[in-house]
Amino acid sequence: MIKFIEKEPYSAIVHTYEVEGILYKGKSKFQEIAVIENPFFGRMLLLDNIVQITQRDEFFYHEMLTHVAMYAHPSPKRVIVIGGGDGGIVREVLKHKSVEKVYFVEIDEMVINVSKKYFPDVSAAIDDPRVEIKTMDGAEFIKGASNIDVVIVDSTDIIGFARTLFTKEFFLSVTNCLTKDGFFVTHTESLHLHKDIVIEMQEELRKVFPVVDLYTMAIATYPGNWWAFAIGSKELDPRQCRHTFDIDTKYYDQEIHAQTFLTPGFYKKLLNRQLKW
Amino acid sequence: MIKFIEKEPYSAIVHTYEVEGILYKGKSKFQEIAVIENPFFGRMLLLDNIVQITQRDEFFYHEMLTHVAMYAHPSPKRVIVIGGGDGGIVREVLKHKSVEKVYFVEIDEMVINVSKKYFPDVSAAIDDPRVEIKTMDGAEFIKGASNIDVVIVDSTDIIGFARTLFTKEFFLSVTNCLTKDGFFVTHTESLHLHKDIVIEMQEELRKVFPVVDLYTMAIATYPGNWWAFAIGSKELDPRQCRHTFDIDTKYYDQEIHAQTFLTPGFYKKLLNRQLKW
Repeated sequence: MIKFIEKEPYSAIVHTYEVEGILYKGKSKFQEIAVIENPFFGRMLLLDNIVQITQRDEFFYHEMLTHVAMYAHPSPKRVIVIGGGDGGIVREVLKHKSVEKVYFVEIDEMVINVSKKYFPDVSAAIDDPRVEIKTMDGAEFIKGASNIDVVIVDSTDIIGFARTLFTKEFFLSVTNCLTKDGFFVTHTESLHLHKDIVIEMQEELRKVFPVVDLYTMAIATYPGNWWAFAIGSKELDPRQCRHTFDIDTKYYDQEIHAQTFLTPGFYKKLLNRQLKW
Repeated sequence: MIKFIEKEPYSAIVHTYEVEGILYKGKSKFQEIAVIENPFFGRMLLLDNIVQITQRDEFFYHEMLTHVAMYAHPSPKRVIVIGGGDGGIVREVLKHKSVEKVYFVEIDEMVINVSKKYFPDVSAAIDDPRVEIKTMDGAEFIKGASNIDVVIVDSTDIIGFARTLFTKEFFLSVTNCLTKDGFFVTHTESLHLHKDIVIEMQEELRKVFPVVDLYTMAIATYPGNWWAFAIGSKELDPRQCRHTFDIDTKYYDQEIHAQTFLTPGFYKKLLNRQLKW
């Protein structure tokens, strides 16, 4: 069997996948990019030998990273998407009719181009006239932004060049660009494998955002799987949906929205570092 | 690096773990048994080269497979545990003060002995006087059982010799041995990787149990991870807790109990095969 073995030592569990074909292999200024074909997951996008998305299940991650913040906001009009060069988050954001402008800030334009060619269903919305592509570091872009309703970070892992998107300085820039009803959301790794990182990110966000919360989803291809999403706002509770569910999704809905957050008891124990595993 | 590569082709994602030591390696009448040491998960029990439990995270699976049914029942006294030779489910069952009798039906006594030696924290309750060990096929044992409050199946995967525990004939025997408030619970693989199996098991259970439901939990070491637990009863709703939370757990509590079930909308779409992935 021809195999793709995910980068080691990336996590305590190394994932291996069957490879039916290598559709693309290249190297940008920032990273190695590859697209492989797997019999179960379909096409898979790899950055530096780490799985980013698969055709089969990308919607779980993209919907959950996008719609919780978008429905917690009363009427999101101006959105910044940082990373997510495949276009999956942009596609989900544009399902919301209230959206007038999306700043799509991806440092590596080769990822966008590869996605346009190999993941047309994921990248379909990138050329929408409401989208303005900015090929630059998201942490730089955000310093000059203002009057933003939702900021979504869809980065590679916290280690590596995406680390500027997980600092207090970056979080401060985000609050400065957000309107008073604004939301910020980012992934923060696996509760099974990186519990300490999940907690530290909550602590860092709390230094800057008055409201911080955590929700999770099992994502098959991310090692440790129990994926944690951190969300912050200036005053609004992200657990509440503030407009009617009116979009087409495969997984997310407003019952899922309510259920996906940690229970109050579990969340409190997590932040108090009372959970031993 | 010395590696343990989980059996292929077991699932669409093959897990690989670092091995610091091999503590045990043997072969019973039924399967190969091994205990390895991993720097992150601690000791890991392997049956036929598939991870069953790890020291670090076994409590998630054992608590969630046990306590949902045990708290949905008004006062569980007589319990059958089928499989789970490591003793983890028996340990959790015996936390409930109402329990008078546990029939612990494990076909392979070598698993029990290995667990007693290498997983003392997991197997600690096996020698409790309320426990009666039956070294036999659970499907055979259940035919002669009666007046049982909760039946818990903690088997190896649905393929292989555990398949007798996933048939309509077995489910019929279970209903026959249960009291009117009785509950049956079993794992049914991963919603990410084995959605069709999860649905088929729900359908099979519905032929026999008036009430059938489904809850999930992300388990790090089971491929696909989004682990599905099927629960059935003669009349009681498993989503409701019927006695006060009064035990010591690391994860399960009554907020988790309520949250762990699929949302009504998602559950309906799943059973109607409207979910595409």
